[in-house]
Amino acid sequence: MSKITTTTRLLLRPLTTRPIIPSTPRHFTTTLPKMSPSTLPTPASCYADFCLIPIGTPTPSVAKEVASVQSLIRDSGIKHTMHSAGTTLEGSWDDVFRVIGQAHSLVHQSGIVRVQTSLRVGTRTDKKQTAEEKVKRVEDILAAGQQ
Amino acid sequence: MSKITTTTRLLLRPLTTRPIIPSTPRHFTTTLPKMSPSTLPTPASCYADFCLIPIGTPTPSVAKEVASVQSLIRDSGIKHTMHSAGTTLEGSWDDVFRVIGQAHSLVHQSGIVRVQTSLRVGTRTDKKQTAEEKVKRVEDILAAGQQ
Amino acid sequence: MSKITTTTRLLLRPLTTRPIIPSTPRHFTTTLPKMSPSTLPTPASCYADFCLIPIGTPTPSVAKEVASVQSLIRDSGIKHTMHSAGTTLEGSWDDVFRVIGQAHSLVHQSGIVRVQTSLRVGTRTDKKQTAEEKVKRVEDILAAGQQ
Amino acid sequence: MSKITTTTRLLLRPLTTRPIIPSTPRHFTTTLPKMSPSTLPTPASCYADFCLIPIGTPTPSVAKEVASVQSLIRDSGIKHTMHSAGTTLEGSWDDVFRVIGQAHSLVHQSGIVRVQTSLRVGTRTDKKQTAEEKVKRVEDILAAGQQ
Repeated sequence: MSKITTTTRLLLRPLTTRPIIPSTPRHFTTTLPKMSPSTLPTPASCYADFCLIPIGTPTPSVAKEVASVQSLIRDSGIKHTMHSAGTTLEGSWDDVFRVIGQAHSLVHQSGIVRVQTSLRVGTRTDKKQTAEEKVKRVEDILAAGQQ
Repeated sequence: MSKITTTTRLLLRPLTTRPIIPSTPRHFTTTLPKMSPSTLPTPASCYADFCLIPIGTPTPSVAKEVASVQSLIRDSGIKHTMHSAGTTLEGSWDDVFRVIGQAHSLVHQSGIVRVQTSLRVGTRTDKKQTAEEKVKRVEDILAAGQQ
Repeated sequence: MSKITTTTRLLLRPLTTRPIIPSTPRHFTTTLPKMSPSTLPTPASCYADFCLIPIGTPTPSVAKEVASVQSLIRDSGIKHTMHSAGTTLEGSWDDVFRVIGQAHSLVHQSGIVRVQTSLRVGTRTDKKQTAEEKVKRVEDILAAGQQ
Repeated sequence: MSKITTTTRLLLRPLTTRPIIPSTPRHFTTTLPKMSPSTLPTPASCYADFCLIPIGTPTPSVAKEVASVQSLIRDSGIKHTMHSAGTTLEGSWDDVFRVIGQAHSLVHQSGIVRVQTSLRVGTRTDKKQTAEEKVKRVEDILAAGQQ
């Protein structure tokens, strides 16, 4: 899975002074490659589940702000699923985090001076798996166990 | 509290067709402004506390990956503080999320096919407050209570 | 982090020396009440959205572990909703966190030595609102805006 | 690594109908054990990093609430470290989540009707590692890489 050639790997200053063991199982290097941050890309795809909270609102209800953010996301064209505890986005890293940043700006523009978002974001390089497929995979295992 | 002037507010297409009630307490609009996502900026500054987890690693220790990510962050020039449960970054929204995305890419390049990050990110428009100031503010309140 | 000596701790006075102003708007006290932790109850109800990650698994797929945890939750009788980025539980604080703790134990028992969970948990005292009602409330606001 | 004996394993109803392959690497079972939730313990130790947010506060500053929660935690006797983006607790699962639940109750008692906490919690069964040791381990790797 590693995209690093042996040549490149040798050119990188290792994090530890221990020699790189060539027979590391499953192509894990004993040290991670070091590259200049400016050349590293952000992931081409990710999923991010987030929950945005306006702080210092006059009432405890934040449904209006959530609706506004949902509207922004819908207009962005990014694949999204709202659930009771957040919204899951699927798209490129840059698109996903641009729209979440814009969501903060949108809520600030309505007069709320402080916004906090809790999120979990995942990336994988071995396969593409949609949100639906992830849920179905677990449900299939559960169903098989009940036979 | 609202930074939106009446003039600006009228130019924004409201989310609902209900009229904006001018006597809303503390100048919160009854609906949030709607703008095209392409024109909304991401926040100029934010803090983000994140914890990156490589999934499917041969051993339960992830210190090497964490060290590699720390090295990436240090090289990025973004202000950062490592603690036992994550790392806090302070910078522009775009800079902060670019480097976290690059951290995912870096770990993927070492052969780990799946990476998940848990994070909380905050933005505020009323004042600048560094990480140190936030901690000091709480400690001051605690100290005052002990006099 | 704590700089408090045992002696100082015993001398703790209230957080501020200012008197509680009775006319504080909306019943906010200027200082928070201080009670012995042993007498404070945990919340009678909460919702918690969590995502459990086994660390150090031989493969990047964690669907089997997620299925096992789903099975545990189902057997617990706690109201739950699985989505692509986690599972939302609704119940008393103690019940919800007992089952999440048991989920960690369950995964450990299968031989995985390290487990991390990312979660967001909310409590409110003004009203009961189910997961379905929260989503519907936002959808209603969105629908109203499209008329 | 697995604590499950072969005998016990066979007595557990497997989640899938596929046979358990005895030569699974590193003693991972192909299916997780299924036990009644009532008999499963919660973990004896964990670390939890959390950030509590009061919602619907009159001002965007939440330092007073954070200070009050810090005071509660200090009185609980649980090992804790405050940083700019949260507080890390170390203790038994039950102790840690009891005090976080009590923190919600404490903030509610001050008149705030809605509280949300974002947290990440980790457990491991292979070794004890304090917060300080985790940070030191990463710093040692970084230092070794700079020689």
